[in-house]
Amino acid sequence: MKLYEMAIAPNPRRVRMFLAEKGLLDQVERVELDLQKGENLTPEFVAKNPLKKVPVLELDDGTCIAETMAICRYFEESYPDTMNLLGATPLEKAQIEQWLRWVEFYFFLPTGMAFQHLSGYFKDRMTPNIPWGEECKTNIEKFFHFLNKHLTQHSWLCCDRYTAADINAFCTLEFARVVGVRIKPEQTHLQDWFDRVKNRPTASV
Amino acid sequence: MKLYEMAIAPNPRRVRMFLAEKGLLDQVERVELDLQKGENLTPEFVAKNPLKKVPVLELDDGTCIAETMAICRYFEESYPDTMNLLGATPLEKAQIEQWLRWVEFYFFLPTGMAFQHLSGYFKDRMTPNIPWGEECKTNIEKFFHFLNKHLTQHSWLCCDRYTAADINAFCTLEFARVVGVRIKPEQTHLQDWFDRVKNRPTASV
Repeated sequence: MKLYEMAIAPNPRRVRMFLAEKGLLDQVERVELDLQKGENLTPEFVAKNPLKKVPVLELDDGTCIAETMAICRYFEESYPDTMNLLGATPLEKAQIEQWLRWVEFYFFLPTGMAFQHLSGYFKDRMTPNIPWGEECKTNIEKFFHFLNKHLTQHSWLCCDRYTAADINAFCTLEFARVVGVRIKPEQTHLQDWFDRVKNRPTASV
Repeated sequence: MKLYEMAIAPNPRRVRMFLAEKGLLDQVERVELDLQKGENLTPEFVAKNPLKKVPVLELDDGTCIAETMAICRYFEESYPDTMNLLGATPLEKAQIEQWLRWVEFYFFLPTGMAFQHLSGYFKDRMTPNIPWGEECKTNIEKFFHFLNKHLTQHSWLCCDRYTAADINAFCTLEFARVVGVRIKPEQTHLQDWFDRVKNRPTASV
């Protein structure tokens, strides 16, 4: 299997951390693309993912799966004896899904949009909307606050254990540095959780 | 079980269509909230979902599950003998997840943001960003085009059968009327797919 990615981007990192926790990172051959050079816009890559994003998993028969969580789910379901990260019961699966979506909609997407609209990284292919970028940045800060409050009573985001929701929130929190949002000194519960994830061997893959 | 919703909103509709296809709609007691009146902002509701959105599923023991797809996944996993809508094999689960995310990120979210930023519906609690709303509207039109092109070669979005991806795209397409985006006469494949979904008895729940 091949994993098309850009190693420094946050979505491929989510997949690598997920695979590392399962002990499956060696199952994929990693193929690096440079998004700023537009290597994801070639006809060859668009045939793999018409929406032009990384990561993409290409199976040995050529079938391609796009989207971070679709790739993660493929591995979760294909290797059921590895560490469970998406839930072991209907309720766990639902609670993790709830948190995955909260992290995605209220944290990852605003961070990505703030980056796109405030950094100028993709200015050759889009027109930044600065007020929208600023609003997204404010929303990221609100989510930091929400997470810190939640973590006053929990060690992990949900299910009392480490799950894909923690991976996604962790990668997003590190990504948020690109728009200047960091954990505040008084957000000690968030910092403690961040350190717990950061200290796992799988956080540096 | 109780399902907190606002019947005319698109997310609760996705859950109802999902439950109807599974024959499970009678398993939930529906509780209607008026979002424009702020009935989702009360302390009682915020205790059920700190992010203040509908739908929320409340189990008989008081456990609450927020987020459309988390609720759908709870029912998919709890009632495995009902119609499968989220995938029966690892590959199907991944392909449906990919499409659910494409529909969510490139279709539902832009439609929701265009509605929020162009309609003035929530103008008492947010500052509209008109250029952002217009850009979202343009992106919806691009997704209509993408879907029509995809459907030239497929009867359903993925897996050669009706899945949750079709439900979500259908509800979003109908929702897009609120910002004036409709199927164009030349988008005949999209129209045919839309009619196939619309003609299912479960489309009107």
